[in-house]
This record gives sequence, structure tokens and C-alpha cells, in this order.
Amino acid sequence: MSKPKGFEKPTGFRDYTPHVVTKLRTIERNVLECMERWGYRQIITPTIEYYDTVGVASSTSDRKLFKLLNSRGTTLVLRSDLTAPIARVVSSLLKDEELPLRLSYHANVFRSIEEEAGREAEFFQTGVELVGDDSPEADAEVVALAIASLQAAGVSSFKIAMGHMGFLNGLLEEVIPGQTVQQEQLKEGLLGRDYVGYRQSIEALNLEPKLKEQLEAILRLRGGKEVCTHATELSSSAEAAQSIAHLCAVFEVLEAYGVSEHVLIDLTMIGDFSYYTGMTFEGYAAELGSPVCSGGRYDNLLQQFGRSLPATGFALKTNRIIDGVHGITIEEKKPVRIQYTSECRAEALNEAARLRSIGQNVVTFLLPEDGAETSTTNVGALTGNKSMQAEQVITFGSEKGGKR
Amino acid sequence: MSKPKGFEKPTGFRDYTPHVVTKLRTIERNVLECMERWGYRQIITPTIEYYDTVGVASSTSDRKLFKLLNSRGTTLVLRSDLTAPIARVVSSLLKDEELPLRLSYHANVFRSIEEEAGREAEFFQTGVELVGDDSPEADAEVVALAIASLQAAGVSSFKIAMGHMGFLNGLLEEVIPGQTVQQEQLKEGLLGRDYVGYRQSIEALNLEPKLKEQLEAILRLRGGKEVCTHATELSSSAEAAQSIAHLCAVFEVLEAYGVSEHVLIDLTMIGDFSYYTGMTFEGYAAELGSPVCSGGRYDNLLQQFGRSLPATGFALKTNRIIDGVHGITIEEKKPVRIQYTSECRAEALNEAARLRSIGQNVVTFLLPEDGAETSTTNVGALTGNKSMQAEQVITFGSEKGGKR
Repeated sequence: MSKPKGFEKPTGFRDYTPHVVTKLRTIERNVLECMERWGYRQIITPTIEYYDTVGVASSTSDRKLFKLLNSRGTTLVLRSDLTAPIARVVSSLLKDEELPLRLSYHANVFRSIEEEAGREAEFFQTGVELVGDDSPEADAEVVALAIASLQAAGVSSFKIAMGHMGFLNGLLEEVIPGQTVQQEQLKEGLLGRDYVGYRQSIEALNLEPKLKEQLEAILRLRGGKEVCTHATELSSSAEAAQSIAHLCAVFEVLEAYGVSEHVLIDLTMIGDFSYYTGMTFEGYAAELGSPVCSGGRYDNLLQQFGRSLPATGFALKTNRIIDGVHGITIEEKKPVRIQYTSECRAEALNEAARLRSIGQNVVTFLLPEDGAETSTTNVGALTGNKSMQAEQVITFGSEKGGKR
Repeated sequence: MSKPKGFEKPTGFRDYTPHVVTKLRTIERNVLECMERWGYRQIITPTIEYYDTVGVASSTSDRKLFKLLNSRGTTLVLRSDLTAPIARVVSSLLKDEELPLRLSYHANVFRSIEEEAGREAEFFQTGVELVGDDSPEADAEVVALAIASLQAAGVSSFKIAMGHMGFLNGLLEEVIPGQTVQQEQLKEGLLGRDYVGYRQSIEALNLEPKLKEQLEAILRLRGGKEVCTHATELSSSAEAAQSIAHLCAVFEVLEAYGVSEHVLIDLTMIGDFSYYTGMTFEGYAAELGSPVCSGGRYDNLLQQFGRSLPATGFALKTNRIIDGVHGITIEEKKPVRIQYTSECRAEALNEAARLRSIGQNVVTFLLPEDGAETSTTNVGALTGNKSMQAEQVITFGSEKGGKR
């Protein structure tokens, strides 16, 4: 174990240079403003939570949680998502607010990584939670808002894949009742989009061909609204039927929103959060293989914080949008450079203040005195006006000390 | 040790409700925009750093650092300020950028607290670093920008107290040369503004009355520009003289900025960061006893990251401004409430989209079907239009199912 070098930072952690920050901040502002238009109000929760409350309630596996101990020996975690902390706040600080609650956030979250190349241990999410409404209308609202948010973030070409946990649960319980290990194995295959592995798992089951075919048929349940009809025909489970009816109702509301062209029904899709109970969805940008947003309904999470309420929501994977999507073009305003001799200082600084007050970015610089020693750093600064650091240069007094 | 209850969060950590977030975000945006006008570009650094690099370089005492171990057993810390991380970035990622570098940030920082009432373990700072310029002009720029930033944050009535580490060091070394323990004791008294303790420490010294009087006289070195003259008379140390000359030059530049009315010279003031080497300052709002901003010059910090460069900067204590200063009035836009029957859904959602596109906040709500069961949460939502949740209500279709 070697000591880190002076300028090193831990693996998976990242510095954002000004150009990238400008892009991140633009996306953050546009998306939060969009969410505000839909009546969502921002909240901020702590970076650190108790392991026994929010840590356990989060869907992040234990080994991926960043843990630390406080002075009393209690285990704390760095938040791994915002859904569990917001569930905590809804159950405490906001318990007297009227329902439904519409809340938004932009925050950094933490997942311990095993030093995989390019994986980030800290990254940003921008999302919403809609609490206290179990209707298809509420699910459709968050999907429609996810679409509006992706557009506000500059993602122009994308698809939303929408599924339902209940359909798969119902169908599996119908075909291989009680076989939880096998059910989990099949779900794992779908979660990882490993369809070869999924088929192999089916083959390994001791089932009559008709039932195997029923499980295989799930893989074809991807497409438009017609998928709902096919799905209904595939299963006689009540849970599956209710789920499909709900999903179909959500799709109809999305048609009313005028955004169904962006939405595919995909019953092979399982949200990667263990707390999802109903509709789940993921957004895919044309440029990227991994999702740029994900969301779903979680009707059992809040009761873990003592308040039983249905809820649905989503989060943009903001870092993937910054890094992988070419949507937003950032124009950085180059500052005006005002340079001056000490005799003209007040005049020059006054002009700088005037330009700033009308929205111009300005840097100021005292010219070296005639014949005076100039330090290396000041010479460095002086050569700056040839380069990208400044565009327009305004000089007060003579550079060669003419006024003196 | 009892387990935390379901909805508890660790001591010293805070949830920000929507109203407070609006205030925080307004201050953040106004201040960062102000800094951008002055040519400062935002950077973001990780929440977690190596203890051996940034942790040690920060001015936070060891016991106040939040520490954790990574999977390799290396000690990590949650950042306790942004100055040390930015010094790391300037020495690595930004090492080829032209000088001077002007960088800004808004970030949360962490200090472990011993559960004192009302102390926060995580709080926000909004600040700048100006790197690569050791002139009085640079120090004056950050003081003037601190003043502009406080004004942008809505702090209308405040004073900046400005001192210099070098004056005190020079004077102490002149009067009690080499007596580092006693020097530290006297500095502690000044840092804590414990003037009684400071006088007692002087009394305890084995010194002739004239020298004791010289140390006591420091307490009177607070006021306007005339303090520089009194200070020059008090010490014959070269370091003290140079420091006063620098401070006087900074004050003159602040006069040229037209902001010296806000500035007091206070040579009893010691910045509470151990890395300060030159000019230091603190800002006091009329409403609050504790400073709302602090800053100063730190010419030795960057060499710890392998790049020897002078630097100066400051940070607003953003939480104190949110909580303690009555500057910014936040007007929260109440959303329009559009309610509709299922038959009029498309029409209603279309109107919602139109209102949102012209900057109106809108929430939408499906009216319960005539005679249908309404769930508790939907009834809760319905009663919402009588209260603060919505102001204007637009109904599409009849609440009693008239259109059906």
C-alpha cells in the first residue's frame, strides 16, 4: 500500500473543469426549471444518513455503500440515491403537508466501485418524487415529465422503455409457483438484458414445453400499445392482468400528453431498484447504450419510515448526459480585459463595474510600472491577452508609462 | 447505544425544505453570477479526498475531519473546505492554464462536531480563489469581490475587518523572539477575541513594562486607514513594516474600487485558517455576531501539491446568510391547478403544456369519476385547492360528470 501522491484523488472521483461545470450547471438549471413548471419543489437532504434507516432502505447493495462511523460508533452511509432520503423527509419534516407531494432534487450520490475503468463513485442525479397518488395518471405524469426533462437537458433523440414489475411477478408465479430461486435467476437474466442466459435458465427448468414457451414469449413483449393485448393473452394471473391494465392506462394518459411516440412498452424490463413495486421505466438516448434516466413506482418504501403512502418518480443520470450526449452547446463568454496604470486605477475599476452591471464579464489587471521588476506570474498574466483568456482589451493609461 | 429511529438523521445534518432551498438557490445563483462577471469560472471537486493529501493540507483540525477507509485501507476524508482541493486541481488538471487563475465554487463542506446545539456538520460555502498573483491588487480584488458577493447575496449592512498575519508575526518576534509557545498563546487570545485572556497572557510574561505596553497596544490597532500609520510606529520589525505597507496598498486599491467605506483595518484579527500567510479578512453582517465570510492570502499552500504559487481568496458562509440575514425576500410562485375529467384529459394537458411553455407553474389533477370510489390520497389532493397549494384553478369537464 503506497501513499497517494500530492496531487492524486481517490479512484472513481472526478474534478469538473470550468467548461464541464458550465454544461452541468446549464443542464441542472434547465431541468430543475422544467420540474418547477410541473409544480415540483426542490428539497436538499444531507450527504450522510444513518445506515440503519436510509442505508438499509436504499436499493444499493451493501457492499456498494460508502460507510463510516460516527463518534458514538453508529454506522453512517453516504447517500446512494435520493429516493430513500426523500421518503424519510416525507415521513418526518413534511408529514403535515398536503398530498400529493411533488418534490425535485439535483444531488450527488455515492456508490463504492471496485476500481473498474471509467466507473464513477460519485455522480449527479436530477429527479422527482410524486408522493401520495397511486393512479395511472401519476405514473404517466412522471414519465411525461421525464420526457420533458430529457428535452430540457438537450437530449433530442431518445426512447422510454416502460414495463411493470407486477406483470413479470404474476406470470412467474403462475408458471413456476413458489420457485423463488428460479424466479430470481430469470429476473437476473432480464435485468442484465442477457437473453441467451435467460433462455438457458428456461431450458434448465423441469417444465412442459408449453410453459417454457410461455416464459420465452416474454422476450417478444416489446413494442407499442399492442403489447398490452399480447401480454393479456399470455397470462391468466390476476396480478399480471391488473398490472397490464394499469400499464395500458398509463400509456393512454401518455397519448393524451402527446408524448407516446417516445414510449415503448417493454415487459422484459425490470427496474434496477429493489424497491420498485409497479410501473418502471428507463430512457435511452440515441448516442448511448446505457440508460440516461430511470424511474418507477415504489409503494412499499415509505412505510419503512412509518408512513404508508404510494409514490412514483424518476432520476436523470445527469453525468451520462454531460459526457455522452451532444445536445447542449455551451458558449462561454470570454471576459473583457481592462488593464490600467496605477494612476488610472479608479477610472478603470469604475468602467469594470459599469460593464459588469450590464452583464459583461470583466477581468482587471494592473500594468507593471515603467522599469519596475515584473514578477513571473504577472508576465504570465500579461501574455494572456493574446490567447483564449481574454478577447477584448481596454487599456487605461499608457502601457509604457506615457502618462507618468 | 440505541438504534436510530426510522425517520432520524445524524446530528448536525439538515434537511432543507422547498422554501429554504429557494432562498439558498437564489443566493447561490446571484453570487455565482456576480463572480462570473468578475471573470471567475466555476469548478467542482469531489466530496471525498485522500487524507494524506488534501486532508492534511486543509486547515481543519484532525479531530474535526470526517474520515473513512477505502477498500485498500487508505484513509479518505470528506472535504472540510474547498481551498485545499482547488490547490490540488491547480497543481494537476489546470497546471497548463495561464495565470492568474480565477476560480469559483459553491459546495458543501463537512466538519465533525461534538453534538453542540445548533452546530452544523455539513454546510455550504460559496467562494473564489485567485491564483498566481501576489500583488496588493489581487488581495484588493478578492476583498472587493467579497463585498460585491455579500451584496448579491442580499446582505445589505456589513463591515469587512482586514488584517495581516505578517504584522502580528513580526511584532511578536520582535518583542518575545523565539518564544513560540507564548506567541501561540497570545494569538489564541486574539483569534477567540478574548481580550481579557490576551491581557492576562501579557501580564504573565516576564517583560519590561514598555514591551508589555507594546503588546497591549495591538488591541487599539482597529479603525480606518490611520491604523496603518499607528502600526508602523509600533514596530521596527521589517516583516511587520512590509506587511503594513502591503495592507495599506490593498486599502488604497479598495478606495479606487469605491468600497473602502465597508472596510475596517483590524490588526487584532487572525484568520482562522492555518494556511493564511498574509492579508486576512472577515465580513460581519449587522444582524449576526459571527462572520458571514472570511478570506485571505495563502502563499505556501500550493507548494504542498508540487506547484509553488501565491494565492488569495475567500468564502461566503452561505448557511449563515440563509439563516441569519433578512436580505432576500423569496416569492414562491403558486402553481395553477388544472383539473379535468378523463374525457377532457388531452385538452387539459395541452393547456397545461401551453401555460408551462410561457413560464407558468402548473399542477394537473384528474377529477374522480362520478360515483367512483376516491382513495384517501385523492381526497387529500382534492381539498388542496382550498389551501396554499394552488391559487388559480382551471377545470376541464364537469366535476359532477356533467359531460358524460
